[in-house]
Amino acid sequence: MQFSDKILNTPSSFIRNILKVTDSPEVISFAGGLPNPISFPIDALQEAINNAIAEQGAKLFQYSTTQGYEPLRQLIAAKYQRNFGLDIQAEDVFITTGSQQALELLGKVFLNKGDGVVMEAPGYLGAIQAFTLAEPNFYPVTLEDDGLNVDELEATLANNANIKFIYTVPNFQNPTGITYSKEKREAIYEVVKKYDVALIEDDPYGELRFEGEALPYIGAGRLENSVLLGSFSKTVTPGFRLGYIVTKNKEILSHVETAKQATDLHTNIFAQMTIAEYLTHNAYQEHVDKIIALYSKQANAMLQAIEKHFPAEVKYTKPEGGMFIWATMPAGISALELFDAAMKVNVAFVPGDPFYTHPENINTLRLNYTNATEEVIEEGIKRLGTIMKEVIASHAVVAQ
Amino acid sequence: MQFSDKILNTPSSFIRNILKVTDSPEVISFAGGLPNPISFPIDALQEAINNAIAEQGAKLFQYSTTQGYEPLRQLIAAKYQRNFGLDIQAEDVFITTGSQQALELLGKVFLNKGDGVVMEAPGYLGAIQAFTLAEPNFYPVTLEDDGLNVDELEATLANNANIKFIYTVPNFQNPTGITYSKEKREAIYEVVKKYDVALIEDDPYGELRFEGEALPYIGAGRLENSVLLGSFSKTVTPGFRLGYIVTKNKEILSHVETAKQATDLHTNIFAQMTIAEYLTHNAYQEHVDKIIALYSKQANAMLQAIEKHFPAEVKYTKPEGGMFIWATMPAGISALELFDAAMKVNVAFVPGDPFYTHPENINTLRLNYTNATEEVIEEGIKRLGTIMKEVIASHAVVAQ
Repeated sequence: MQFSDKILNTPSSFIRNILKVTDSPEVISFAGGLPNPISFPIDALQEAINNAIAEQGAKLFQYSTTQGYEPLRQLIAAKYQRNFGLDIQAEDVFITTGSQQALELLGKVFLNKGDGVVMEAPGYLGAIQAFTLAEPNFYPVTLEDDGLNVDELEATLANNANIKFIYTVPNFQNPTGITYSKEKREAIYEVVKKYDVALIEDDPYGELRFEGEALPYIGAGRLENSVLLGSFSKTVTPGFRLGYIVTKNKEILSHVETAKQATDLHTNIFAQMTIAEYLTHNAYQEHVDKIIALYSKQANAMLQAIEKHFPAEVKYTKPEGGMFIWATMPAGISALELFDAAMKVNVAFVPGDPFYTHPENINTLRLNYTNATEEVIEEGIKRLGTIMKEVIASHAVVAQ
Repeated sequence: MQFSDKILNTPSSFIRNILKVTDSPEVISFAGGLPNPISFPIDALQEAINNAIAEQGAKLFQYSTTQGYEPLRQLIAAKYQRNFGLDIQAEDVFITTGSQQALELLGKVFLNKGDGVVMEAPGYLGAIQAFTLAEPNFYPVTLEDDGLNVDELEATLANNANIKFIYTVPNFQNPTGITYSKEKREAIYEVVKKYDVALIEDDPYGELRFEGEALPYIGAGRLENSVLLGSFSKTVTPGFRLGYIVTKNKEILSHVETAKQATDLHTNIFAQMTIAEYLTHNAYQEHVDKIIALYSKQANAMLQAIEKHFPAEVKYTKPEGGMFIWATMPAGISALELFDAAMKVNVAFVPGDPFYTHPENINTLRLNYTNATEEVIEEGIKRLGTIMKEVIASHAVVAQ
């Protein structure tokens, strides 16, 4: 059999592949991107399920509409009205099978083969995978500590008329944990509004802020082709696969609807009705506050351990929320080499490579802190620091 | 904004679009393809949910594996071993977000733009939509009362080296309700095995047989590129969006896994664990037998009403299972014209047009019998028969 070019060119997930080695119980893994299971509101969800079944009966189990359950879309819209003063209505919200599907649907809707996509470098590897299925050209733009490099972004847009959209994660970015500053958001808006491109702001972690103030989105509420993505995976449960697209652009939404019909008809309605019931009758914000407190402690534990155990020449980000820290070793040190060495002492992380569309000589790594106790974080970072020093030292010797 | 060619060329679902007019309570609708909601085992599912949460806790709510929950895959494999003597193991089963997603993933995995797909004419419109996203050339092959026209199939395969797969629904086909005969299955197998193409057998209704004996699949268990699709949507619940791919071909499965990762990471694990629990501890076959008894009565009611009320020159299929009857009016009579006339007396059906990749002068229609009582079926068919006679008579006048 001959297979399609697009599937032969799509990287299988590095993270999912290394799970086979990092999943064993003796490994301290900072590799995943999983919410802490103690953060799932299981009892409240069980209650929501019972109530939803009692009230809606067969409707939870039947086929449903492609755009998604209207009361859930209303609840989502109300959150954006409340938290950001945005004029978002239920009709502007489209429910997807996790926000991974939102990415894939947007790829389908916008991209012919060879069309351009601006990606953060480094950027979310699941987005790279999803868009690759549509066979685009990727245009990486350097991600700095406060967001995309604006001059590079402007030059990239000016020189490449084939670009259809820009993909960003403005809050606690995956993989770096960085947050776009208010000034960068404004500067990016000023550049993007001059071009006929869509701006995708993917925000799965935005509500998990443990430091600083929430910032307005870059394009939502003011760019004609603004597309905002959200998810219940990091705040309630990823197992339900519930994400959503928010846009005031009816043309985009109508094409997304056709793509969704053809892709999986509609999103699991049992999950949608259950989450709507949960959001209506439970203290959602209190629950999110608990997750924030938990992740804040874990992030601090990891930052303190890094400060103590990593070699001084290794730089790292200090996230204000979310799930990740990004470390940068001296130029020339390979994170893949570090990965092999670290696995020998049973510590896992994700080398930076899969987060770049054009990887070469990658000296960066992603560390997740949401799935280990403070003690385990301290121990894992200590071991990793030791290995880093060895790997860096061995390169110094070679370089002499 | 410019949108992609593939989305501009993908038809939005005719059925989903007409739901807006056919859904109103005064309309007798034979248009849908929905299981009867009284067929959902709600109490048993509630129990399965409670047990699954009690036993597995947070695992129901966490991210999970791309291929799907292994105990569920084992249960599915065991069914094919038991019912068909096929050597299917858990590793040969891949869980999808409904079998609609299976179609879309297979399109991605096999098709470059311009590659060929053999479709039944008429064929399942959801498959036409799903495959269209990969921009193939469709090669329709006439569907006869006992399956694909074998000579046409052979000529099509011989003349078009770009064909990657053949898509079939061998049992109680959607839209026609026909079942491939044993002889046709053998003849198709003999043709297909000579070509390097995959054979997709989509079988969502196979267990819902109310007449005759179950027949062996065309290619499963003997063709190297056999792909079998199944679903829990017609036997347990469509709301959970659970379907699956079965193939012994590891190369196909590995590409499907990459496509699935990029598309939506994995299927809702809560739904998978619940259904596994349900299948393990509940009388699944007894439940399916109840659905069969229900649909058998409804099919008979519709066949008797058609016999009584349709004009003699209208032909129709007599399904041995599943959910649909297919009617063929005299040549030159437009089913779309009939649809408009029938809606004036509040009766809905699906005109044949969307089931053809190259529709022209369509005089066929699909009738669903699973969502109305016997009395409503009699009344609706009576009204439809009257309208048919009027439409046919008006054409006879024009033709004079």
